[in-house]
Amino acid sequence: MTTIHDVARHAGVGAATVSRVLSGKGYVKLETRERVMQSIRKLNYTPNEMARNLYFRKSGIIAVIVPDLSHPFFSEVVNAIEAALREEGYQTMVCNSFSDRNYELRYLEMLKRQQVDGIIFGAHTSLASEQYRNLERPVIGLDRRLADNIPIIAADHEEGGRLAAEEMLRSGCKKIIQLGDIEDSVATLSIRRHAVFREIVEEAGISCLSYPKHPENYTFDAFYETAACMFAEYPDTDGVFGTDLYAAAALRYALEHGIRVPEDLKIIGYDGTEMMRFLYPDITLISQPIEDLAKESVRMITEMIRGKEIPQKRVVLPITLRRGSTTAGDRNAAADSI
Amino acid sequence: MTTIHDVARHAGVGAATVSRVLSGKGYVKLETRERVMQSIRKLNYTPNEMARNLYFRKSGIIAVIVPDLSHPFFSEVVNAIEAALREEGYQTMVCNSFSDRNYELRYLEMLKRQQVDGIIFGAHTSLASEQYRNLERPVIGLDRRLADNIPIIAADHEEGGRLAAEEMLRSGCKKIIQLGDIEDSVATLSIRRHAVFREIVEEAGISCLSYPKHPENYTFDAFYETAACMFAEYPDTDGVFGTDLYAAAALRYALEHGIRVPEDLKIIGYDGTEMMRFLYPDITLISQPIEDLAKESVRMITEMIRGKEIPQKRVVLPITLRRGSTTAGDRNAAADSI
Repeated sequence: MTTIHDVARHAGVGAATVSRVLSGKGYVKLETRERVMQSIRKLNYTPNEMARNLYFRKSGIIAVIVPDLSHPFFSEVVNAIEAALREEGYQTMVCNSFSDRNYELRYLEMLKRQQVDGIIFGAHTSLASEQYRNLERPVIGLDRRLADNIPIIAADHEEGGRLAAEEMLRSGCKKIIQLGDIEDSVATLSIRRHAVFREIVEEAGISCLSYPKHPENYTFDAFYETAACMFAEYPDTDGVFGTDLYAAAALRYALEHGIRVPEDLKIIGYDGTEMMRFLYPDITLISQPIEDLAKESVRMITEMIRGKEIPQKRVVLPITLRRGSTTAGDRNAAADSI
Repeated sequence: MTTIHDVARHAGVGAATVSRVLSGKGYVKLETRERVMQSIRKLNYTPNEMARNLYFRKSGIIAVIVPDLSHPFFSEVVNAIEAALREEGYQTMVCNSFSDRNYELRYLEMLKRQQVDGIIFGAHTSLASEQYRNLERPVIGLDRRLADNIPIIAADHEEGGRLAAEEMLRSGCKKIIQLGDIEDSVATLSIRRHAVFREIVEEAGISCLSYPKHPENYTFDAFYETAACMFAEYPDTDGVFGTDLYAAAALRYALEHGIRVPEDLKIIGYDGTEMMRFLYPDITLISQPIEDLAKESVRMITEMIRGKEIPQKRVVLPITLRRGSTTAGDRNAAADSI
C-alpha cells in the first residue's frame, strides 16, 4: 500500500508538506501543492478520508434529491446517506422533487457555482442527457439514468423481478397483477423488474396483467384507491406484486374484504422498508440493499469530488427475497430466506 | 397595508432604490441601504418573501436537526419543512442526531460562521441553556426547550394526554400501561402528555402503570421487544398508550397472540403518521398537526433571520383524536372524529 512517504519521495518534498497539502492547513507554495497532488493521483494514494475531503471539497455540502422525503424508501436512503456523508466530513442538503418539479436547473446551477460539491440524484429527470454528459462535475444517479458517462448505482432489479416471479409461480398463482407504474417515465433501472417478472410468469403459461398507475402523491389514500379499483376490475386476481406501499394497501384491502391471504391471494412487496415489519401478517418482500446503496453512493461521489476517475459506470448491488406469510412456496424445499 | 412607496417616501429615496436594496441586485450606497432598512423595520413593511430573504440571508441554508430521518414522524416533519423553506427561498440541510451525539457544537459553530442562517432544533440537547441564551442567532426549538428566550413550537400535548385518557376511560379500560420513554431526557414538551394522561386515569380510580423504555434505535425489533416484554410482565393489561410505533408493535403482538382488539385490549397511538393508515385494524390515534408544525417553524425562523422580534416565545398548536377501531368509546354519544 502507498504511504505518505512514497508520495513525499515521488514529489520530492517532506512528509510534513504532503500532510499540510492534505489538511489544507499551513502554507504550501502553489506549484509544490500541485506537484504533491499529481503524485497523490499517480500513486493512487489513499490518506485519511477526512483530510482528503478537506482539501478537495469547496462547500463541504452534497445535495441529495429524492421524490419525497416522507416516503419510507427514500427516508431510509437519505438517512443512511446522511450518516455516511457525515463520516466523510460532508453535510447533506436535501430536496423533495415531488413538490418542486423545476428543481433540476437550480441544483445544477448550485453545482456549477460550487455551492454544493456534488449531487446524488434519486429523482425524475427531464433534461436531455447532453446537459448531464457535458457537466464534468460530480453527479451520480441513484437508480436513475442521467447520461452514459454518469455513474449509476442500483440494486439488481432484474434479479428482483426473477425472485418475485419464481415465488409467485411456486405459490401456485394463476392470475397475477403487477400494481403501479410500469412505464419508464423517470429513467429508473428498477422498472426493469416488471418486464423480467412478466416474462418469467408468462413463460410458465400464467396470466400476468399490469395495472399501471403513477400515484399523484405518496399518501395511503393514493395507494389504497389504486388497489381498490384493481380488485373491483379484476376480482379473481390471486397474486399481487408492487412496491411496499402497494403491497401494504393490497393486504389491507384483502383483510377488510375477507379475502384469505395466502389461500386466495398472494402478495409480494418490493423495497423491503422497515415499516413493513409492523404489518401483520408478514408480507413476502424483495428487499433492496438500502444501507449499501447509500454507502456506495457516498463512496462514489466523494471519490469523484477528489478527482478520481470512476471507471465503473454502473454498480449493481444484490437484492434478496424475505419470505413472509403472504406467499405459500414449497417450504420444505426452500429455505426461509434465500 | 404598507407599500414599497411608503417605505421610499419615509427613507427619502425612490421605489426603485428600495427594490434594489431588497433584491440585493444593483448598487446602493451603504448609508442609503441602512436608511431604507430602518424604514422597512419602522413601518413593518412586508415585501415579497423571496426578495426579503435574498437581502437578509447569508448562506440561504437552514439546518434541521432531528433524531432520525427514517422515523416516520421526523421524515414527515422534515419533508414539510423542506417544502415550506423552499417557498421562502431557502435550502434545507439535515442532520440525523441519533447517529451523531456530538453534533450540537458543530452546528452552533456553523451558525456563528454563517454557513447556515438558522437552525430548527428537533433533537435532544445536552448543552446548558446559557449556551443557547447568549447565542443571539436564529434558533428555534421544535418541541424542544433550549432556553427561556428561544422560541419553541409544539403541539398541545396536554390536550393530547387528556384526549387519550378520556378515550381509554370511555372504552372501559381497567389496567392501562403507558409504553415508552416517560422521563424528560430530551427536554420535550410532548413528555407532558404522560403526566396528564396518568392524572386523569388515576382520578377515575383506574390503574395506570408506565413501562418506560427509550429505544436504542428506531427499528421494528426495538419497539416490538418492548411491547413483548410488557405483555409478558403484565398479561392482564387491557389498555396501551404509546407513540405510533409502540402502538403498531402492540397491535401486531395482539394479533399474533390471539388477544382480541378492542374487546380485550384497547390501543391508542400518539403522533398520527401516514404509515399508520396502512395498518388493519385502524388504530385510534392522537394526531399531531405535522404540516402546521413545519409551516410555523419556517415562518418563525425566517422572521428571526429578517431581524424581526418574536414576542411569542411559545406557540402551541391544536391536536386531535382520530378514532379507529382499537378503542370502543360510546359511539352513539360521540362523533366519529372529535
